[in-house]
Amino acid sequence: MTTTTEAPRRGRPGYDRDGMLAVIVAAFNDHGYDATSLGIIAQRLGLSKSAVYHHFSSKEEMLELALEKALGALEQVFDSPQATEGPADLRIRHVLRGAVRVACEQQPYLTLLLRLRGNTDAQRHAMERRRAFDQRLRRLFELARDEGALREDMDPGVAERLTFGLVNSLVEWYRPDGPMTPDELAKAVVAFVRSGLRVSESRDYR
Amino acid sequence: MTTTTEAPRRGRPGYDRDGMLAVIVAAFNDHGYDATSLGIIAQRLGLSKSAVYHHFSSKEEMLELALEKALGALEQVFDSPQATEGPADLRIRHVLRGAVRVACEQQPYLTLLLRLRGNTDAQRHAMERRRAFDQRLRRLFELARDEGALREDMDPGVAERLTFGLVNSLVEWYRPDGPMTPDELAKAVVAFVRSGLRVSESRDYR
Repeated sequence: MTTTTEAPRRGRPGYDRDGMLAVIVAAFNDHGYDATSLGIIAQRLGLSKSAVYHHFSSKEEMLELALEKALGALEQVFDSPQATEGPADLRIRHVLRGAVRVACEQQPYLTLLLRLRGNTDAQRHAMERRRAFDQRLRRLFELARDEGALREDMDPGVAERLTFGLVNSLVEWYRPDGPMTPDELAKAVVAFVRSGLRVSESRDYR
Repeated sequence: MTTTTEAPRRGRPGYDRDGMLAVIVAAFNDHGYDATSLGIIAQRLGLSKSAVYHHFSSKEEMLELALEKALGALEQVFDSPQATEGPADLRIRHVLRGAVRVACEQQPYLTLLLRLRGNTDAQRHAMERRRAFDQRLRRLFELARDEGALREDMDPGVAERLTFGLVNSLVEWYRPDGPMTPDELAKAVVAFVRSGLRVSESRDYR
């Protein structure tokens, strides 16, 4: 397909490292990370295998860089003051909006994260960081329960899992060229989750 | 690992065809269907490859039988009178309860269905049948909207996708030996979805 060049190249014209990563992650998502060979990656990039190694030291490094896009973005959401200060109710709203934005903007990278099977150290480490989000959202629901903002018949752990299930499902069907913007989706998700989890309709949610 | 037997066997002692299928589906879910070789399957079953072929004509047949467990169960839910007659609101409740039951009882088979990538005819056919459920639930939400039971700011298509996202996420974390029964989970899911989608808290939902 392609010829090997001796001089280090920055990928094909038009590819920067991020652009290459996008192509690589699409291959991971099509074939599964474990089943994606370097040959497949090189072919998709239109580069020789050795040229690919000018940019990434290993498949594992590609995985780590790709996962960081989703994990880093989610950590920013959970670490922001709006997620760590104030009433649990508003903190949950901020986290939901942020998580929807990440699902839309980092769609292929989050897809990769959600499909990991834990077969390598890098995969297991990423899955641990993902589990930390579960714990943080669960604590927010526990706080909401203590503050009287979570319906009493709903276990905070179940609330957390169903909520992330709903948000994460966005990666399966969100389309950047679809009829809804990430902001509109965030509103719909917040409305869905909130009205399902709040004690009373009479509270003012905006 | 195992020796080939010339006489047709019904699998290992204790394995009937359903038991073999459970072992096979676990392999599919661990490795991905496309990457699961007959060698892996034979090893997991403790049978020779030729012995496996006494029970299943091909890997594709194993896939079809496995997917049928999830697809057939879901079709039963959608085809039942409680899902096809009466107010949309009650029909949705019936579908939700049934879908949660399927997610819990057919967990590995539904997991397999949800992870299909569409690389073979059998996979694409199963994905079409799955999409039909999306359309049927969407029509129920449209009906609910027409009957005034769906909140006005919620698009029926978005409601459907988020709802199935929430229900399908159960396969990722439901444990048969966990603290909640399928019935309790169904109640929690119905409460979550309903209160999020209904027009008013004052309606009596049970």
